[in-house]
Formats: sequence, C-alpha cells, structure tokens
Amino acid sequence: MPGNSVGIVYPQIMNFEEVLGLTSGAQLSKYEVAFETYGDLNETKSNAILVCHALNASHHVAGIYADDKKNIGWWDNLIGPGKPVDTNKFFVIGVNNLGGCHGTTGPASINPETGVEFGGDFPIITVEDWVEVQARLANRLGITKFFAVMGGSLGAMQALQWSISYPDRVQNAIVIAAAPKLSAQNIAFNEVARQAITTDPNYYGGHYYGKNVVPTKGLRIARMIGHITYLSDDAMAEKFGRDLRKDSLTFNFDVNFQIESYLRYQGDKFADSFDANTYLRITKALDYFDPAANHDGDLAAALSNVGGEFLIISFTSDWRFSPSRSHEIVKALIDNGKNVSYAEIDAPHGHDAFLMADARYHKIIRRYLERTRL
Amino acid sequence: MPGNSVGIVYPQIMNFEEVLGLTSGAQLSKYEVAFETYGDLNETKSNAILVCHALNASHHVAGIYADDKKNIGWWDNLIGPGKPVDTNKFFVIGVNNLGGCHGTTGPASINPETGVEFGGDFPIITVEDWVEVQARLANRLGITKFFAVMGGSLGAMQALQWSISYPDRVQNAIVIAAAPKLSAQNIAFNEVARQAITTDPNYYGGHYYGKNVVPTKGLRIARMIGHITYLSDDAMAEKFGRDLRKDSLTFNFDVNFQIESYLRYQGDKFADSFDANTYLRITKALDYFDPAANHDGDLAAALSNVGGEFLIISFTSDWRFSPSRSHEIVKALIDNGKNVSYAEIDAPHGHDAFLMADARYHKIIRRYLERTRL
Repeated sequence: MPGNSVGIVYPQIMNFEEVLGLTSGAQLSKYEVAFETYGDLNETKSNAILVCHALNASHHVAGIYADDKKNIGWWDNLIGPGKPVDTNKFFVIGVNNLGGCHGTTGPASINPETGVEFGGDFPIITVEDWVEVQARLANRLGITKFFAVMGGSLGAMQALQWSISYPDRVQNAIVIAAAPKLSAQNIAFNEVARQAITTDPNYYGGHYYGKNVVPTKGLRIARMIGHITYLSDDAMAEKFGRDLRKDSLTFNFDVNFQIESYLRYQGDKFADSFDANTYLRITKALDYFDPAANHDGDLAAALSNVGGEFLIISFTSDWRFSPSRSHEIVKALIDNGKNVSYAEIDAPHGHDAFLMADARYHKIIRRYLERTRL
Repeated sequence: MPGNSVGIVYPQIMNFEEVLGLTSGAQLSKYEVAFETYGDLNETKSNAILVCHALNASHHVAGIYADDKKNIGWWDNLIGPGKPVDTNKFFVIGVNNLGGCHGTTGPASINPETGVEFGGDFPIITVEDWVEVQARLANRLGITKFFAVMGGSLGAMQALQWSISYPDRVQNAIVIAAAPKLSAQNIAFNEVARQAITTDPNYYGGHYYGKNVVPTKGLRIARMIGHITYLSDDAMAEKFGRDLRKDSLTFNFDVNFQIESYLRYQGDKFADSFDANTYLRITKALDYFDPAANHDGDLAAALSNVGGEFLIISFTSDWRFSPSRSHEIVKALIDNGKNVSYAEIDAPHGHDAFLMADARYHKIIRRYLERTRL
C-alpha cells in the first residue's frame, strides 16, 4: 500500500519586507522564500508538517511540475495520499532554505544595497537562521504549532533545532540520519569540497555571476566527494564492484570502472544544476551546527528545554552519520526525561538510506504519525 | 631499545639501457632507477630486504641526507642498527618506482623519442611492472633471492606481487595494511583525486612541464582527499575534534577549525613537492592491482604458486584497507597451505598506522625477522 503521488504541484513565493538578523551578525533587509504545500490545512491548523531539506535538495519535496513531469519531489516516495506521511491527513510544507538556489533569496539574488548579485558577499547562514525563516513563514501561514517538523541529515538538524528554538511550536520532531554536530572527519570532507570550489579559477571570490563563468570544475569535484560519503562501501561494492565499462582495462585516464562513470555523471549533473555559492554556505551551516557548544559541549544541557516528542531514526550502514551519532541525541533526550522513539534500520544504502523506500523505515514513520489523533 | 639511525645516506642511480616491456603493451627503451641501501650485503647475498614504497614515498626509506638533515627516510623508525629491521644484520634496499618523481624515470624525464619530457605520454604503470624493474635492479646487485620483500599499503601489494611473479626469489613477504584489490569506494576516492588534477586548467593533458605552470590546485585537492582516507575518524577526533583555530567562528571561508588548517597545510606541502603526473599513475596502479582477475576472481587460485612465507599485518582502525581485506589474503594463502603469520594491531591511527612506531607492531616485525638464521 505505497499510496499515490500528490500529482502536479506549484511552487509559491512569500515576500518578507522585514529585517532578518542572522547568527553571523549580518542582516538581510528583505528576502523571499520559495515553498510548496501538499494536502489541506485543517480548521484548527493542527495538521501541518514541515519538511526540512538537506544539502542539495529544495522545497520540491513531493509531486511533479506541470511543465517538467520528470522533476519528481525528492521525498515523493514518503509523502502523498496514503503514503507514510499521508497528505489526506496532513498539510505538508517544503521550504527552500535561505542562501539556496531554487527560489529563496540566496547568493545569486540581487543585493538591494548594490543592485547586483550578492555573490561572495552573501552572508554565512546557520541552521538557527533557517529555523527562524521557517518560523516566519509558519507565522504567515497562521501555523502556531507544527504537528511535526521532520528531515534527514542536515534536514534532521533543522528539526532538532526547531525543538530547541521553538519548544512550544513542535509537537513531534522526526530526526533521521542525523548527528548532533559534525566530526572532524565530516568537517574535513566539507573543507576539501569547499577548497575545490574556492580554488577554481572561475570562482572569483564568489563574484562569478557577472563574468559569464561558473566554477563548474570545483563544484563537480565537491559533489563527487560528497557522493562517496552518501553511499556505503557495501552499497558501492554491490552496485558497481570492480565492474569495467569496457571489456578490458584501457591503460589511460578514460573511464575504466563503472564507479568512475557514475561519479563523473553525478558530478556533471550536479554542477550543471546547482550554485557553488549555495553549496559553500550549506557545508558551512553543517560545520557550524553544534547546539551543545554553548553548554560546554553538554548535549543534554543543550536539549534540556526542548519541546515535543521525538522519533530518531538511523541506518546501520551510514558512515557519514553513523547510528552512534543518533545514540548521542537519544541519550541526551532520555537524560532529560523526554519522550523518544528510536529505530536503527538495517539498511545497506549508507547515508542516502533516508531517501530510499525501505519498507521497515517507512512503516515506522507511518505508525509514528498514526499514533496521534489530530 | 628503539635502535639508532643509519645516519647519512646517499641515493644512487642505476642506468638500464635495455627495453622494458610494460603490462600496458607500451615499452621504454631505457630507464634509470633511483635507490638507496643501508647495511652490508653478506657474502652469500642472503640478507637483502627490499622495501617497496606506497603512494607518495620514495627510495629514501631511512637515514638523512648530508645536505638536508631534516629529510628523514619515511620508514626510519623501523629500519636502522638495532631497529626492528636491523641494518646490522640486513642489507636493506629502497627503490623509487618507475613513473616516480624522485629520481627514477617518470613523466618529467626526457622522452628519448621526442627530446622533451614524456608528460602525458608517459605510460600507465602496474604493480607487476614495478616488480619487474625491482627484479632487474636486484639482478644488477647480484641478489638472486631476497630474505624479505616488505611494504605497507601499495608497498604491500608489491610484496605480494613479488611472491606471485618471482616465487623462488622471495623468502618472506611482509604485507602490511594491504588489500588484494581496491573496492569500489577505494577506486572512487582515487577517481575524484584524478579528476581534480585532470580538470585543473594547468594540467594540459599532462604536458605542463614546458608551459611554466603546474596543476597545483588539483594536486592539492587530491592530496587532501587522500589524507582523509589515511587517518581514522577517531584519530582525527582525538587530534583535532572541533577545535577552533581562533577563539570563535569567523562566519567566512577562512580557516575555522584546526582540521581545516591541517588539511590545507598538508595539501600545500604535497602540491609543492610532488608531481601530478606521477600521482595520477600511482593511483591507477592501485586501481588496476587485482591478481585474482585472471583467475575468475579466485584469489586462492591467484596465490597457488606463491613462494616463501608470509607475515600479514593489519590495523583495527584502518578504514581504507580494513583488517577484513587482510583476512582475504590470509585465507587465500592458508587455502594453499602456505606458511602465514597474521597480526591485527589494535591501533587508533587508521591506514597511516603502518608508518607509526607502535611498540606491538614493531615488535612483531622484529620477532618475525629474528626467527630465521641467515
């Protein structure tokens, strides 16, 4: 019973003509937010679920566009009529995050102070900043309290931050494939990706929009690095192994192994469709996320005032944010006497498992959301 | 009782004016090999140990240079008078591999057919080719049989290949932190490194020597990627954690975390001292190494005729070539009734542990080499 698609969907833009103060100290005098909604908001406005996106996704969470039917929302397998996040019951909102490149104000937007694109001058954004923007959008939509805020990976960090920033506005936080902060190795991968972009001769300190060039080569390398960390060693072995593209080794630098072909393809596709300045800022938001930092590293202290109940999910083969990282969150919540459900899914796909239609994983989300009568 | 340094050492060059046929089908009409030796070859020439180097090392295995006393050999902690590989007893040889950039003929050497550097025309080299060159050097030195051939990582693959290519010329193969072939994930990391180099605008298809430019940016990224895979997650956490360079986050793309500073430094240092064309070829030799490939993937069949005895060593925290990869080699050798000693060292350093002076690790090598009277 996998359910149906929400069908054709329409992105919307909300304009905010009000100052937004950022964690960095910088300010935006005005900004736009791109979002989509699926299902209907009920009269008491108690059935809204906010879906937060991770590194390279957007507000296009489910359904298709009338003029681009191959562009399926990134969590379409989870969200729709009769699906685990059932749009017959819930009003689901997807938001493109600030600094993004899919409609929300970001580095490629015009800086009202200069009349040209922000480029390298666009500020560094934090997870806290994203939550603030999402909260303002919720205000506009008249949503005082979300039935759930949910996300995977960086999206899960936003769900966790919601429960910290707005404890009274989150009934359930669904935190999937997350970590309470990046490890040194996580930061290291992000830093190499950033260095690939910022040392690309076409980067120009982020001010490449007016120059008719794009740091494609750097962004491509960044994406290839990221992609390795999204898949498990086993999943790569299963999918590609040492399979050759041609019958035999070529003894040159052409593609020899299928994994090489796959990585180049993924890198090319991403570099043609994503903005390097956005990528840089999203990796920085990941690096900076660390709610325990203001509490001498004590995560339990950082989570002492969180609101709502929690569903935490991890995947056994995820080596980017391994189950032990979720255990840290679970323990800190239990230490505070919070209501936590935790599931560790035996899935082979690595970090990307949160995007897959694993039956046990989806059933857990379905059952969790069914528990509560609206 | 760690022993002493071999002291001041001198690199030597051996000229080979003879055709070398390579696995790729290409030929070199002549070539030079840079090497160093420590200790004395005994009368029966039965005490020679060949040390094979890994990705970024060279023939400078132990000791220092008279005019560069800070340039200590890469395995100096293991090799010297009274050290685990005791140069009072053994005659130790370090060789720079073909295609290298430290004295042995490589891409920056003059192509006798054109009168300019080989550059991008230098052939792809395999582990088998390296063993062939090392065997010819041994012939010149009058060494019919090595007491041991040893190495870590890619160096260990050469030791294993020696036991396959020349079963009668290896008394002991010491195979440390190895794998019988790269996994898809291993190849993936190599491919991203290669893509960083070959898409650097200064690469020019490998023909950059005459252009007064070097693909430094690409090589720097390649090295940073490699470095992450050499260290364990735990070692990085222990060494750097989330320690900041300054008192607080900078909210820009300057160094924030110490791990970023470390990676940039390692990348810069390497890019200034190593040749990108060599790096490309060494990663390719790694990708192509797969002795079982000619035996329908049956490693036991590939190792059925190997000579000598084996010491296999792995490190618990090595995620590049984890202990399970060494188990594959051990199993294949045991299936053939070979004499194998295996040690799995509980060390936190990751893949780089093979370069560290871990007491238990060094003691195992010392005891293994002491077993046999020369």
